[in-house]
Amino acid sequence: MSTYTAIKLMQRPTGSIGPELFEVVQESVPEVSDGELLIRQTHMSLDPAMLGWMSADTESYIPPVELGSVMRSSGLGEVVESKHPKFAKGDRVMGMFGWQEMALSDGRGVNKIDAALDPEMVISVFALPGLTATQGLYSIGKPKSGETLVVSGAAGSVGSIVGQLAKADGLKVIGVVGSQEKADWITKELGFDGAVNYKTDDIGSRLDELVPEGIDVYFENTGGPVQHRVFERMNAHGRIVVCGMIADYTAKEPASGPNWMNIIKKRLLIQGFTMPDHFDKTKELQAKLTPYVQKGQIKYRSHTIEGLESAMSGLNLLFTGENKGKLIVKL
Amino acid sequence: MSTYTAIKLMQRPTGSIGPELFEVVQESVPEVSDGELLIRQTHMSLDPAMLGWMSADTESYIPPVELGSVMRSSGLGEVVESKHPKFAKGDRVMGMFGWQEMALSDGRGVNKIDAALDPEMVISVFALPGLTATQGLYSIGKPKSGETLVVSGAAGSVGSIVGQLAKADGLKVIGVVGSQEKADWITKELGFDGAVNYKTDDIGSRLDELVPEGIDVYFENTGGPVQHRVFERMNAHGRIVVCGMIADYTAKEPASGPNWMNIIKKRLLIQGFTMPDHFDKTKELQAKLTPYVQKGQIKYRSHTIEGLESAMSGLNLLFTGENKGKLIVKL
Repeated sequence: MSTYTAIKLMQRPTGSIGPELFEVVQESVPEVSDGELLIRQTHMSLDPAMLGWMSADTESYIPPVELGSVMRSSGLGEVVESKHPKFAKGDRVMGMFGWQEMALSDGRGVNKIDAALDPEMVISVFALPGLTATQGLYSIGKPKSGETLVVSGAAGSVGSIVGQLAKADGLKVIGVVGSQEKADWITKELGFDGAVNYKTDDIGSRLDELVPEGIDVYFENTGGPVQHRVFERMNAHGRIVVCGMIADYTAKEPASGPNWMNIIKKRLLIQGFTMPDHFDKTKELQAKLTPYVQKGQIKYRSHTIEGLESAMSGLNLLFTGENKGKLIVKL
Repeated sequence: MSTYTAIKLMQRPTGSIGPELFEVVQESVPEVSDGELLIRQTHMSLDPAMLGWMSADTESYIPPVELGSVMRSSGLGEVVESKHPKFAKGDRVMGMFGWQEMALSDGRGVNKIDAALDPEMVISVFALPGLTATQGLYSIGKPKSGETLVVSGAAGSVGSIVGQLAKADGLKVIGVVGSQEKADWITKELGFDGAVNYKTDDIGSRLDELVPEGIDVYFENTGGPVQHRVFERMNAHGRIVVCGMIADYTAKEPASGPNWMNIIKKRLLIQGFTMPDHFDKTKELQAKLTPYVQKGQIKYRSHTIEGLESAMSGLNLLFTGENKGKLIVKL
């Protein structure tokens, strides 16, 4: 009887995230029953949202991963056996397969993916990052040509797509990043109109220089001091998409938010969302993204690490900002 | 040639609000030209929003009152002369007539009011407070029967109407107030399900007691510590209507807002509004309010002070919380 490797979450994170939180186990390859399919995973996506899934305090968010269970993640794989009417052996599929080499599924939440597409592109654009960017930008941010958008975490997997979609839609786009290398990438490669390096720039003065006209849409991925400086510069009827607060995920004390007086004065809309609420719209969101991808308007870069077990230490790269592009584990 | 009294704003407020900011002048009664009407004002409304109108920093909000101009306010009056096709002598009208006994108008923004209605009821319910409550509650709060709503400034002119509309719509309603007398009024007279006295209660514990199920809609009129305690208790997909921050209007330093992590976790919507953006919907909003008033579901109390000049010191009552009900100046 053959086996495969899986990684289980054994402890909730309290500070840094590393191998000490997990256990690597060998599991027997299961029998496939009627209505099921067996997937061999080829690529796994590592995303900041995972820290939320690993934590116990997520209340009304999607349930946390139970201790002793396989760590949750989305990924790409190939069907190796199918007794499910909608899937055949050899199909390329995407789904929440978890940190394991093989996954048994009843087909729910599993989507077929064109086998001609580059797997790193699929994970970087058509999976969680692109879905999240598209859902947040269009359903909350409602960008209009001629407006100004600022996105934090702009070189990240979500932020880079948000900025490129907005540029393609005719907005002026400024990205906030944490290194000169990332600033160069978003302005020179992705076509952003400007970059703020929150580690070296005086954020307020730099924004005054780049967006004297004020900000209509803010796509928030990070929190931190950037949030306050952008908030003060929002235009009347501005929209703020609250997608991530990565600066706060590992903070001991939550940072203060801005005073709400500006919400009245500028009649702001601020809305948070999490992608799992909208997974039923996956096909629709992918359809919205497709023409931008086909026109070559969405560039991406991926940061691939090798082997299932590399995920355990690799996840921390997202919180140190060391990853350069969408973090992918190749199995 | 006859004259009337008017009050002009001469200084911007820096701390307290009193007669030192204004000048009382006598003006000549103007000639009425074609397309105009002359109104004798009978009742003036004093509202917290006035402090914003008096301040110079309102940027993209409605323009501040210019120094040397008649102070802005809404009021009720009688047409004493009309060369306007839509108005006749004797009509009861409502509009932004300002701090003056008589007002010349071209009819824009002037609405006819049923002369049978009690003038204090008109100002307390169908004017700014009721319009503001209705606009904010329904267009942002989107209350649903069975949900829980918390409103701060609950004994105020806007808050008391918000709570009563929500009760009539089948919500559980808790009001935050600053005195036992106000707590008694909203629970015993208006039918609220409970009250928090922010001056004497431990706000968090009291909310835990009153709304263990969490909060679906928060209607924010005050800011202050209440904001944080309510924010922490919002349910998933909760809505926060940001209408007023009266605790901050006279504060030297703006208070910190809550950390935004909860906006993501609970997928909250937070939206600010100011009624002047929506004055074109006045008739529609009054029509929405009317059935509640006709069914006796909207009680109000007014606090009337006498004489135009009483407005100068009376305005401050709104910020000390000493007014008991809608503040009205009877001319």
